[in-house]
Amino acid sequence: MPYYAFLNGKMLPIEKAFVHISDLGLLRGYAVFDYLRTYNRKPFLLQQHLARFEHSARELNLELPCSGKQIEGIISRLLSKSAIRTDCGIRLLLTGGRSADGITISRPTFAITTEKLIFPPESAYRKGVKLITREFQRESPYIKTTNYKNAIRLNPEKLRQKAHEILYCFGGKILETTRNNFFVFKGDTLITPGANILHGITRSFVLSLAKGVFRVEERDVLVSELPGVSEAFITGTTRKILPVVKVNDQAIGEGKPGKNSLHLLKLFEEKVAER
Amino acid sequence: MPYYAFLNGKMLPIEKAFVHISDLGLLRGYAVFDYLRTYNRKPFLLQQHLARFEHSARELNLELPCSGKQIEGIISRLLSKSAIRTDCGIRLLLTGGRSADGITISRPTFAITTEKLIFPPESAYRKGVKLITREFQRESPYIKTTNYKNAIRLNPEKLRQKAHEILYCFGGKILETTRNNFFVFKGDTLITPGANILHGITRSFVLSLAKGVFRVEERDVLVSELPGVSEAFITGTTRKILPVVKVNDQAIGEGKPGKNSLHLLKLFEEKVAER
Repeated sequence: MPYYAFLNGKMLPIEKAFVHISDLGLLRGYAVFDYLRTYNRKPFLLQQHLARFEHSARELNLELPCSGKQIEGIISRLLSKSAIRTDCGIRLLLTGGRSADGITISRPTFAITTEKLIFPPESAYRKGVKLITREFQRESPYIKTTNYKNAIRLNPEKLRQKAHEILYCFGGKILETTRNNFFVFKGDTLITPGANILHGITRSFVLSLAKGVFRVEERDVLVSELPGVSEAFITGTTRKILPVVKVNDQAIGEGKPGKNSLHLLKLFEEKVAER
Repeated sequence: MPYYAFLNGKMLPIEKAFVHISDLGLLRGYAVFDYLRTYNRKPFLLQQHLARFEHSARELNLELPCSGKQIEGIISRLLSKSAIRTDCGIRLLLTGGRSADGITISRPTFAITTEKLIFPPESAYRKGVKLITREFQRESPYIKTTNYKNAIRLNPEKLRQKAHEILYCFGGKILETTRNNFFVFKGDTLITPGANILHGITRSFVLSLAKGVFRVEERDVLVSELPGVSEAFITGTTRKILPVVKVNDQAIGEGKPGKNSLHLLKLFEEKVAER
Protein backbone atom coordinates (compact mmCIF):
# COMPACT_ATOMS: atom_id res chain seq x y z
CA MET A 1 0.00 0.00 0.00
CA PRO A 2 2.05 2.90 -1.27
CA TYR A 3 1.39 6.36 0.14
CA TYR A 4 0.98 9.02 -2.51
CA ALA A 5 2.08 12.62 -2.77
CA PHE A 6 0.82 15.57 -4.74
CA LEU A 7 3.77 17.80 -5.62
CA ASN A 8 3.55 20.97 -7.71
CA GLY A 9 0.66 19.66 -9.74
CA LYS A 10 1.81 16.04 -10.08
CA MET A 11 0.50 12.95 -8.32
CA LEU A 12 3.21 10.40 -7.53
CA PRO A 13 4.19 7.65 -5.07
CA ILE A 14 5.74 9.35 -2.04
CA GLU A 15 9.04 7.55 -2.65
CA LYS A 16 9.40 9.59 -5.83
CA ALA A 17 8.62 12.99 -4.30
CA PHE A 18 11.74 15.15 -4.28
CA VAL A 19 12.36 18.89 -4.06
CA HIS A 20 15.32 20.73 -5.50
CA ILE A 21 18.21 21.42 -3.17
CA SER A 22 17.93 25.18 -3.74
CA ASP A 23 14.37 25.31 -2.40
CA LEU A 24 13.96 28.01 0.26
CA GLY A 25 12.09 25.46 2.36
CA LEU A 26 15.34 23.57 2.68
CA LEU A 27 18.03 26.27 2.46
CA ARG A 28 16.26 28.90 4.56
CA GLY A 29 13.68 26.98 6.56
CA TYR A 30 11.05 29.06 4.76
CA ALA A 31 7.94 26.91 4.84
CA VAL A 32 4.60 26.41 6.51
CA PHE A 33 2.64 23.22 6.88
CA ASP A 34 -0.43 21.67 8.40
CA TYR A 35 -1.17 18.13 9.42
CA LEU A 36 -4.47 16.39 9.83
CA ARG A 37 -5.76 12.82 9.89
CA THR A 38 -8.64 10.77 8.67
CA TYR A 39 -11.20 8.98 10.83
CA ASN A 40 -13.14 6.29 9.02
CA ARG A 41 -11.09 7.31 5.96
CA LYS A 42 -12.58 10.82 5.93
CA PRO A 43 -10.39 13.88 6.65
CA PHE A 44 -11.14 15.19 10.15
CA LEU A 45 -11.70 18.94 10.72
CA LEU A 46 -10.40 19.64 7.22
CA GLN A 47 -11.95 23.12 6.93
CA GLN A 48 -10.27 24.22 10.15
CA HIS A 49 -6.90 22.87 9.02
CA LEU A 50 -7.27 24.56 5.64
CA ALA A 51 -8.12 27.87 7.29
CA ARG A 52 -5.05 27.66 9.53
CA PHE A 53 -2.84 26.62 6.62
CA GLU A 54 -4.05 29.61 4.60
CA HIS A 55 -3.37 31.87 7.58
CA SER A 56 0.18 30.50 7.94
CA ALA A 57 0.82 30.99 4.21
CA ARG A 58 -0.46 34.57 4.28
CA GLU A 59 1.75 35.41 7.26
CA LEU A 60 4.80 34.30 5.28
CA ASN A 61 3.74 36.13 2.08
CA LEU A 62 3.27 32.79 0.32
CA GLU A 63 0.56 32.37 -2.26
CA LEU A 64 -1.21 29.03 -2.39
CA PRO A 65 -1.38 27.77 -5.99
CA CYS A 66 -4.87 26.34 -5.48
CA SER A 67 -8.08 27.02 -3.61
CA GLY A 68 -9.36 25.22 -0.54
CA LYS A 69 -11.93 23.49 -2.74
CA GLN A 70 -9.16 22.25 -5.06
CA ILE A 71 -7.10 21.03 -2.09
CA GLU A 72 -10.14 19.06 -0.91
CA GLY A 73 -10.33 17.46 -4.34
CA ILE A 74 -6.63 16.60 -4.36
CA ILE A 75 -6.87 15.02 -0.90
CA SER A 76 -9.81 12.96 -2.01
CA ARG A 77 -7.88 11.72 -5.09
CA LEU A 78 -4.80 11.04 -2.93
CA LEU A 79 -6.86 8.97 -0.52
CA SER A 80 -8.38 6.78 -3.21
CA LYS A 81 -5.08 6.49 -5.10
CA SER A 82 -3.14 5.56 -1.97
CA ALA A 83 -5.41 2.54 -1.52
CA ILE A 84 -4.77 2.59 2.22
CA ARG A 85 -7.23 0.50 4.17
CA THR A 86 -6.51 2.16 7.50
CA ASP A 87 -6.69 5.81 8.49
CA CYS A 88 -3.74 8.00 7.59
CA GLY A 89 -2.11 11.36 8.17
CA ILE A 90 -2.33 14.14 5.58
CA ARG A 91 0.38 16.79 5.39
CA LEU A 92 0.08 20.10 3.54
CA LEU A 93 3.39 21.83 2.83
CA LEU A 94 4.10 25.19 1.22
CA THR A 95 7.63 26.53 0.85
CA GLY A 96 9.28 29.63 -0.62
CA GLY A 97 10.30 27.53 -3.64
CA ARG A 98 13.49 28.00 -5.61
CA SER A 99 15.10 31.38 -5.35
CA ALA A 100 17.82 32.93 -7.51
CA ASP A 101 19.31 35.00 -4.68
CA GLY A 102 18.40 32.84 -1.69
CA ILE A 103 16.09 35.50 -0.28
CA THR A 104 13.47 36.45 -2.88
CA ILE A 105 10.38 34.28 -3.17
CA SER A 106 9.30 33.34 -6.68
CA ARG A 107 7.07 30.28 -7.24
CA PRO A 108 6.21 28.42 -4.01
CA THR A 109 6.59 24.65 -3.79
CA PHE A 110 3.30 23.03 -2.77
CA ALA A 111 2.87 19.46 -1.64
CA ILE A 112 0.26 17.26 -0.04
CA THR A 113 1.36 13.89 1.25
CA THR A 114 -0.40 10.96 2.84
CA GLU A 115 1.48 9.30 5.69
CA LYS A 116 1.29 6.40 8.10
CA LEU A 117 -0.17 7.54 11.43
CA ILE A 118 2.05 7.08 14.46
CA PHE A 119 0.25 6.87 17.80
CA PRO A 120 1.39 6.87 21.41
CA PRO A 121 1.33 3.34 22.91
CA GLU A 122 -2.02 2.29 24.37
CA SER A 123 -0.40 2.20 27.85
CA ALA A 124 0.17 5.98 27.66
CA TYR A 125 -3.62 6.47 27.91
CA ARG A 126 -3.94 4.02 30.79
CA LYS A 127 -1.03 5.28 32.87
CA GLY A 128 -0.68 8.86 31.68
CA VAL A 129 2.58 10.39 30.53
CA LYS A 130 5.41 12.50 31.91
CA LEU A 131 6.49 15.85 30.47
CA ILE A 132 9.72 17.72 31.08
CA THR A 133 9.89 21.50 30.86
CA ARG A 134 12.27 23.73 28.94
CA GLU A 135 12.49 27.53 28.90
CA PHE A 136 11.56 28.40 25.32
CA GLN A 137 9.06 30.35 23.28
CA ARG A 138 8.72 29.72 19.56
CA GLU A 139 9.68 32.57 17.23
CA SER A 140 6.27 33.02 15.60
CA PRO A 141 4.01 30.89 17.78
CA TYR A 142 0.80 31.62 15.85
CA ILE A 143 2.21 30.41 12.53
CA LYS A 144 2.64 26.71 11.84
CA THR A 145 6.12 26.92 10.35
CA THR A 146 8.48 24.00 9.85
CA ASN A 147 10.84 25.23 12.56
CA TYR A 148 11.08 22.26 14.96
CA LYS A 149 14.80 22.57 15.52
CA ASN A 150 14.46 22.86 19.25
CA ALA A 151 12.12 19.87 19.45
CA ILE A 152 14.47 17.56 17.56
CA ARG A 153 17.50 18.86 19.39
CA LEU A 154 15.87 18.07 22.73
CA ASN A 155 14.61 14.65 21.63
CA PRO A 156 17.55 12.62 23.05
CA GLU A 157 17.12 14.36 26.43
CA LYS A 158 13.39 13.60 26.34
CA LEU A 159 14.11 9.90 25.74
CA ARG A 160 16.78 9.85 28.45
CA GLN A 161 14.27 11.18 30.97
CA LYS A 162 11.54 8.81 29.73
CA ALA A 163 9.33 11.81 29.02
CA HIS A 164 6.59 11.79 26.40
CA GLU A 165 7.01 15.43 25.43
CA ILE A 166 8.87 18.66 26.17
CA LEU A 167 6.68 21.37 27.72
CA TYR A 168 7.82 24.85 26.67
CA CYS A 169 7.59 27.45 29.42
CA PHE A 170 8.62 31.08 29.22
CA GLY A 171 8.92 33.67 31.94
CA GLY A 172 7.07 31.50 34.45
CA LYS A 173 4.21 30.74 32.05
CA ILE A 174 3.40 27.35 30.57
CA LEU A 175 2.93 27.60 26.80
CA GLU A 176 2.67 24.34 24.82
CA THR A 177 4.65 21.18 24.11
CA THR A 178 6.79 20.85 21.01
CA ARG A 179 3.77 19.51 19.08
CA ASN A 180 0.76 19.67 21.39
CA ASN A 181 -1.40 22.00 23.42
CA PHE A 182 -1.55 21.76 27.20
CA PHE A 183 -4.61 21.76 29.47
CA VAL A 184 -5.15 21.48 33.21
CA PHE A 185 -8.17 20.87 35.38
CA LYS A 186 -8.59 22.56 38.72
CA GLY A 187 -11.58 20.62 40.01
CA ASP A 188 -14.23 21.01 37.31
CA THR A 189 -12.61 24.04 35.70
CA LEU A 190 -10.69 23.38 32.51
CA ILE A 191 -7.85 25.87 31.93
CA THR A 192 -5.55 26.26 28.93
CA PRO A 193 -3.06 28.93 27.79
CA GLY A 194 -4.38 31.15 25.01
CA ALA A 195 -1.40 33.40 24.16
CA ASN A 196 1.97 32.76 22.50
CA ILE A 197 0.99 29.26 21.44
CA LEU A 198 -0.06 27.58 18.25
CA HIS A 199 -3.84 27.44 18.22
CA GLY A 200 -4.25 23.73 17.72
CA ILE A 201 -7.22 22.44 15.77
CA THR A 202 -7.63 19.58 18.24
CA ARG A 203 -7.35 22.16 21.02
CA SER A 204 -10.35 24.08 19.60
CA PHE A 205 -12.30 20.86 19.14
CA VAL A 206 -11.65 19.84 22.76
CA LEU A 207 -12.64 23.30 23.98
CA SER A 208 -15.92 23.01 22.09
CA LEU A 209 -16.53 19.56 23.61
CA ALA A 210 -15.76 20.88 27.10
CA LYS A 211 -18.03 23.91 26.98
CA GLY A 212 -21.36 23.04 28.55
CA VAL A 213 -19.78 20.19 30.53
CA PHE A 214 -17.09 22.12 32.42
CA ARG A 215 -16.24 25.69 33.25
CA VAL A 216 -13.61 26.73 30.71
CA GLU A 217 -10.88 29.36 31.09
CA GLU A 218 -8.41 30.43 28.41
CA ARG A 219 -5.72 32.30 30.29
CA ASP A 220 -2.03 32.21 31.22
CA VAL A 221 -1.17 29.08 33.19
CA LEU A 222 1.77 29.56 35.53
CA VAL A 223 4.40 26.93 36.24
CA SER A 224 3.84 27.74 39.91
CA GLU A 225 0.21 26.61 39.61
CA LEU A 226 1.14 23.00 38.80
CA PRO A 227 1.19 21.72 42.40
CA GLY A 228 -2.45 22.87 42.70
CA VAL A 229 -3.93 21.32 39.56
CA SER A 230 -5.99 18.14 39.80
CA GLU A 231 -5.50 16.86 36.23
CA ALA A 232 -3.57 17.68 33.09
CA PHE A 233 -3.53 16.50 29.49
CA ILE A 234 -2.18 17.37 26.07
CA THR A 235 -4.09 17.50 22.80
CA GLY A 236 -3.02 16.91 19.22
CA THR A 237 -4.01 15.28 15.96
CA THR A 238 -2.54 11.86 16.72
CA ARG A 239 -2.73 12.10 20.51
CA LYS A 240 -6.35 13.23 20.83
CA ILE A 241 -6.52 13.77 24.62
CA LEU A 242 -3.54 12.24 26.37
CA PRO A 243 -3.45 12.40 30.20
CA VAL A 244 -0.34 13.90 31.83
CA VAL A 245 0.50 12.61 35.29
CA LYS A 246 3.92 14.15 35.87
CA VAL A 247 5.76 17.34 34.91
CA ASN A 248 9.46 17.01 35.72
CA ASP A 249 9.33 15.61 39.27
CA GLN A 250 5.96 17.13 40.07
CA ALA A 251 3.11 14.60 40.22
CA ILE A 252 -0.13 15.99 38.77
CA GLY A 253 -3.17 15.44 41.01
CA GLU A 254 -3.19 11.81 42.13
CA GLY A 255 -0.51 10.82 39.66
CA LYS A 256 -2.92 8.94 37.39
CA PRO A 257 -5.22 9.92 34.49
CA GLY A 258 -7.99 12.12 35.89
CA LYS A 259 -11.70 11.39 35.57
CA ASN A 260 -12.55 14.68 33.82
CA SER A 261 -9.82 14.12 31.24
CA LEU A 262 -11.05 10.59 30.59
CA HIS A 263 -14.60 11.86 30.29
CA LEU A 264 -13.50 14.36 27.63
CA LEU A 265 -11.58 11.62 25.82
CA LYS A 266 -14.74 9.50 25.80
CA LEU A 267 -16.76 12.39 24.34
CA PHE A 268 -14.00 12.86 21.75
CA GLU A 269 -14.07 9.23 20.69
CA GLU A 270 -17.86 9.15 20.52
CA LYS A 271 -17.80 12.19 18.24
CA VAL A 272 -15.30 10.68 15.79
CA ALA A 273 -17.06 7.29 15.83
CA GLU A 274 -20.28 8.99 14.67
CA ARG A 275 -18.65 10.13 11.43
CA MET B 1 29.24 26.50 -17.23
CA PRO B 2 27.12 24.22 -15.10
CA TYR B 3 27.54 24.43 -11.33
CA TYR B 4 27.99 21.06 -9.69
CA ALA B 5 26.73 19.57 -6.46
CA PHE B 6 28.00 16.78 -4.24
CA LEU B 7 24.99 15.09 -2.64
CA ASN B 8 25.19 12.08 -0.32
CA GLY B 9 28.27 10.73 -2.04
CA LYS B 10 27.34 11.57 -5.62
CA MET B 11 28.67 14.32 -7.86
CA LEU B 12 26.04 15.78 -10.18
CA PRO B 13 25.03 18.97 -12.03
CA ILE B 14 23.21 21.16 -9.54
CA GLU B 15 20.03 21.05 -11.64
CA LYS B 16 19.80 17.36 -10.80
CA ALA B 17 20.30 17.70 -7.04
CA PHE B 18 17.09 16.85 -5.21
CA VAL B 19 16.29 15.78 -1.67
CA HIS B 20 13.34 13.68 -0.60
CA ILE B 21 10.27 15.51 0.61
CA SER B 22 10.40 13.73 3.99
CA ASP B 23 13.86 15.12 4.80
CA LEU B 24 13.97 16.73 8.25
CA GLY B 25 15.81 19.65 6.66
CA LEU B 26 12.62 20.43 4.77
CA LEU B 27 9.84 19.19 7.06
CA ARG B 28 11.33 20.38 10.33
CA GLY B 29 13.87 23.03 9.38
CA TYR B 30 16.50 20.76 10.92
CA ALA B 31 19.71 21.69 9.13
CA VAL B 32 22.96 23.60 9.43
CA PHE B 33 25.03 25.10 6.68
CA ASP B 34 28.05 27.19 5.92
CA TYR B 35 28.89 29.37 2.98
CA LEU B 36 32.25 30.49 1.68
CA ARG B 37 33.67 31.80 -1.56
CA THR B 38 36.74 31.47 -3.70
CA TYR B 39 39.23 34.23 -4.49
CA ASN B 40 41.38 33.52 -7.50
CA ARG B 41 39.51 30.21 -7.67
CA LYS B 42 40.85 29.07 -4.30
CA PRO B 43 38.46 28.62 -1.32
CA PHE B 44 38.91 31.50 1.12
CA LEU B 45 39.26 30.81 4.88
CA LEU B 46 38.18 27.23 4.29
CA GLN B 47 39.57 25.87 7.58
CA GLN B 48 37.63 28.46 9.56
CA HIS B 49 34.41 27.69 7.69
CA LEU B 50 34.93 23.96 8.20
CA ALA B 51 35.50 24.44 11.92
CA ARG B 52 32.30 26.47 12.26
CA PHE B 53 30.34 23.97 10.17
CA GLU B 54 31.53 21.13 12.39
CA HIS B 55 30.56 23.15 15.46
CA SER B 56 27.07 23.79 14.05
CA ALA B 57 26.64 20.10 13.24
CA ARG B 58 27.75 19.02 16.72
CA GLU B 59 25.31 21.44 18.36
CA LEU B 60 22.46 19.80 16.44
CA ASN B 61 23.63 16.22 17.16
CA LEU B 62 24.37 15.70 13.48
CA GLU B 63 27.27 13.53 12.41
CA LEU B 64 29.21 14.61 9.35
CA PRO B 65 29.69 11.66 6.98
CA CYS B 66 33.20 12.79 6.06
CA SER B 67 36.23 14.46 7.52
CA GLY B 68 37.39 18.01 6.93
CA LYS B 69 40.16 16.63 4.74
CA GLN B 70 37.63 14.73 2.61
CA ILE B 71 35.44 17.84 2.32
CA GLU B 72 38.48 19.75 1.05
CA GLY B 73 38.98 17.08 -1.58
CA ILE B 74 35.32 17.16 -2.65
CA ILE B 75 35.41 20.95 -2.96
CA SER B 76 38.51 20.74 -5.09
CA ARG B 77 36.85 18.16 -7.40
CA LEU B 78 33.67 20.28 -7.54
CA LEU B 79 35.67 23.35 -8.55
CA SER B 80 37.46 21.60 -11.40
CA LYS B 81 34.31 19.76 -12.52
CA SER B 82 32.20 22.92 -12.47
CA ALA B 83 34.61 24.47 -14.98
CA ILE B 84 33.69 27.94 -13.77
CA ARG B 85 36.11 30.60 -14.94
CA THR B 86 35.10 33.16 -12.33
CA ASP B 87 35.04 32.87 -8.56
CA CYS B 88 32.06 31.14 -6.98
CA GLY B 89 30.25 30.49 -3.75
CA ILE B 90 30.49 27.14 -1.96
CA ARG B 91 27.68 25.95 0.29
CA LEU B 92 27.96 23.12 2.80
CA LEU B 93 24.61 21.72 3.98
CA LEU B 94 23.86 19.05 6.56
CA THR B 95 20.29 18.10 7.47
CA GLY B 96 18.62 15.60 9.80
CA GLY B 97 17.90 13.40 6.75
CA ARG B 98 14.83 11.24 6.32
CA SER B 99 13.03 10.29 9.50
CA ALA B 100 10.41 7.61 10.05
CA ASP B 101 8.62 9.49 12.82
CA GLY B 102 9.44 13.08 11.83
CA ILE B 103 11.52 13.63 14.97
CA THR B 104 14.25 10.99 15.17
CA ILE B 105 17.47 11.58 13.25
CA SER B 106 18.83 8.63 11.29
CA ARG B 107 21.20 9.25 8.36
CA PRO B 108 21.94 12.95 7.73
CA THR B 109 21.74 14.38 4.24
CA PHE B 110 25.02 16.05 3.27
CA ALA B 111 25.54 18.32 0.31
CA ILE B 112 28.16 20.68 -1.05
CA THR B 113 27.11 22.97 -3.88
CA THR B 114 28.90 25.54 -6.00
CA GLU B 115 26.92 28.68 -6.75
CA LYS B 116 27.10 31.93 -8.67
CA LEU B 117 28.26 34.74 -6.40
CA ILE B 118 25.85 37.64 -5.97
CA PHE B 119 27.45 40.95 -4.97
CA PRO B 120 26.06 44.30 -3.85
CA PRO B 121 26.20 46.88 -6.67
CA GLU B 122 29.49 48.78 -6.95
CA SER B 123 27.66 52.00 -6.00
CA ALA B 124 26.92 50.54 -2.55
CA TYR B 125 30.65 50.79 -1.76
CA ARG B 126 30.90 54.34 -3.10
CA LYS B 127 27.80 55.73 -1.41
CA GLY B 128 27.37 53.41 1.54
CA VAL B 129 24.11 51.65 2.40
CA LYS B 130 21.11 52.11 4.64
CA LEU B 131 19.96 49.58 7.24
CA ILE B 132 16.61 49.39 8.99
CA THR B 133 16.29 47.92 12.47
CA ARG B 134 13.93 45.26 13.78
CA GLU B 135 13.54 43.93 17.33
CA PHE B 136 14.65 40.30 17.03
CA GLN B 137 17.19 37.86 18.38
CA ARG B 138 17.82 34.58 16.58
CA GLU B 139 16.89 31.39 18.43
CA SER B 140 20.36 29.87 18.53
CA PRO B 141 22.57 32.74 17.40
CA TYR B 142 25.86 30.83 17.68
CA ILE B 143 24.73 28.04 15.35
CA LYS B 144 24.52 28.61 11.60
CA THR B 145 21.15 26.96 11.07
CA THR B 146 18.97 27.37 8.00
CA ASN B 147 16.36 29.39 9.88
CA TYR B 148 16.13 32.63 7.87
CA LYS B 149 12.36 32.87 8.10
CA ASN B 150 12.43 36.31 9.62
CA ALA B 151 14.90 37.60 7.03
CA ILE B 152 12.79 36.48 4.08
CA ARG B 153 9.59 37.62 5.70
CA LEU B 154 11.02 41.12 6.17
CA ASN B 155 12.53 41.29 2.66
CA PRO B 156 9.59 43.15 1.04
CA GLU B 157 9.69 45.77 3.83
CA LYS B 158 13.46 46.13 3.30
CA LEU B 159 12.97 46.75 -0.42
CA ARG B 160 10.11 49.19 0.26
CA GLN B 161 12.39 51.24 2.50
CA LYS B 162 15.31 51.01 0.04
CA ALA B 163 17.42 49.45 2.78
CA HIS B 164 20.32 47.10 2.08
CA GLU B 165 19.80 44.94 5.16
CA ILE B 166 17.75 44.49 8.32
CA LEU B 167 19.69 45.14 11.52
CA TYR B 168 18.46 42.95 14.37
CA CYS B 169 18.39 44.68 17.75
CA PHE B 170 17.20 43.22 21.03
CA GLY B 171 16.57 44.92 24.33
CA GLY B 172 18.39 48.07 23.26
CA LYS B 173 21.44 46.20 21.94
CA ILE B 174 22.50 46.00 18.32
CA LEU B 175 23.19 42.39 17.34
CA GLU B 176 23.74 41.62 13.63
CA THR B 177 21.97 41.92 10.29
CA THR B 178 20.06 38.99 8.83
CA ARG B 179 23.25 37.76 7.13
CA ASN B 180 26.10 40.02 8.25
CA ASN B 181 28.00 41.28 11.25
CA PHE B 182 27.90 44.91 12.28
CA PHE B 183 30.80 47.19 13.24
CA VAL B 184 31.10 50.83 14.25
CA PHE B 185 34.01 53.23 14.59
CA LYS B 186 34.12 55.82 17.32
CA GLY B 187 37.11 57.82 16.11
CA ASP B 188 39.91 55.28 15.76
CA THR B 189 38.25 52.69 17.97
CA LEU B 190 36.57 49.80 16.17
CA ILE B 191 33.67 48.30 18.13
CA THR B 192 31.57 45.23 17.35
CA PRO B 193 29.04 43.15 19.32
CA GLY B 194 30.42 39.85 20.60
CA ALA B 195 27.42 38.18 22.24
CA ASN B 196 24.18 36.65 20.86
CA ILE B 197 25.40 36.87 17.27
CA LEU B 198 26.74 34.48 14.71
CA HIS B 199 30.51 34.65 14.81
CA GLY B 200 31.13 35.46 11.19
CA ILE B 201 34.28 34.20 9.52
CA THR B 202 34.67 37.50 7.67
CA ARG B 203 34.08 39.23 11.00
CA SER B 204 37.07 37.40 12.55
CA PHE B 205 39.20 38.12 9.50
CA VAL B 206 38.37 41.85 9.69
CA LEU B 207 39.10 41.89 13.42
CA SER B 208 42.51 40.36 12.73
CA LEU B 209 43.19 42.97 10.04
CA ALA B 210 42.12 45.78 12.38
CA LYS B 211 44.23 44.76 15.34
CA GLY B 212 47.48 46.68 15.26
CA VAL B 213 45.92 49.42 13.14
CA PHE B 214 43.03 50.42 15.39
CA ARG B 215 41.94 49.99 18.96
CA VAL B 216 39.45 47.12 18.94
CA GLU B 217 36.59 46.47 21.34
CA GLU B 218 34.25 43.49 21.31
CA ARG B 219 31.36 44.50 23.50
CA ASP B 220 27.64 45.25 23.49
CA VAL B 221 26.79 48.10 21.14
CA LEU B 222 23.69 50.00 22.16
CA VAL B 223 21.14 51.44 19.73
CA SER B 224 21.42 54.65 21.76
CA GLU B 225 25.11 54.91 20.82
CA LEU B 226 24.42 55.31 17.10
CA PRO B 227 24.18 59.13 17.09
CA GLY B 228 27.72 59.19 18.50
CA VAL B 229 29.48 56.81 16.10
CA SER B 230 31.67 58.20 13.33
CA GLU B 231 31.49 55.24 10.91
CA ALA B 232 29.73 51.91 10.52
CA PHE B 233 29.98 48.91 8.21
CA ILE B 234 28.81 45.35 7.81
CA THR B 235 30.93 42.30 6.98
CA GLY B 236 30.13 39.08 5.18
CA THR B 237 31.42 36.60 2.64
CA THR B 238 30.06 38.40 -0.43
CA ARG B 239 29.99 41.90 1.06
CA LYS B 240 33.52 41.98 2.47
CA ILE B 241 33.41 45.38 4.24
CA LEU B 242 30.41 47.40 3.17
CA PRO B 243 30.05 50.95 4.56
CA VAL B 244 26.79 51.84 6.32
CA VAL B 245 25.76 55.51 6.19
CA LYS B 246 22.24 55.39 7.61
CA VAL B 247 20.33 53.32 10.18
CA ASN B 248 16.60 54.03 9.88
CA ASP B 249 16.55 57.84 9.75
CA GLN B 250 19.80 58.24 11.69
CA ALA B 251 22.74 59.36 9.54
CA ILE B 252 26.01 57.69 10.57
CA GLY B 253 28.92 60.10 10.98
CA GLU B 254 29.05 62.39 7.97
CA GLY B 255 26.56 60.26 6.02
CA LYS B 256 29.21 58.86 3.66
CA PRO B 257 31.65 55.90 3.77
CA GLY B 258 34.21 56.60 6.49
CA LYS B 259 37.98 56.71 5.96
CA ASN B 260 38.78 54.03 8.55
CA SER B 261 36.25 51.67 6.98
CA LEU B 262 37.68 52.28 3.51
CA HIS B 263 41.18 51.74 4.86
CA LEU B 264 40.14 48.35 6.26
CA LEU B 265 38.47 47.47 2.95
CA LYS B 266 41.72 48.30 1.16
CA LEU B 267 43.70 46.06 3.54
CA PHE B 268 41.09 43.33 2.94
CA GLU B 269 41.43 43.56 -0.83
CA GLU B 270 45.20 43.58 -0.68
CA LYS B 271 45.15 40.42 1.41
CA VAL B 272 42.91 38.51 -0.99
CA ALA B 273 44.83 39.76 -4.04
CA GLU B 274 48.04 38.24 -2.60
CA ARG B 275 46.56 34.76 -2.70
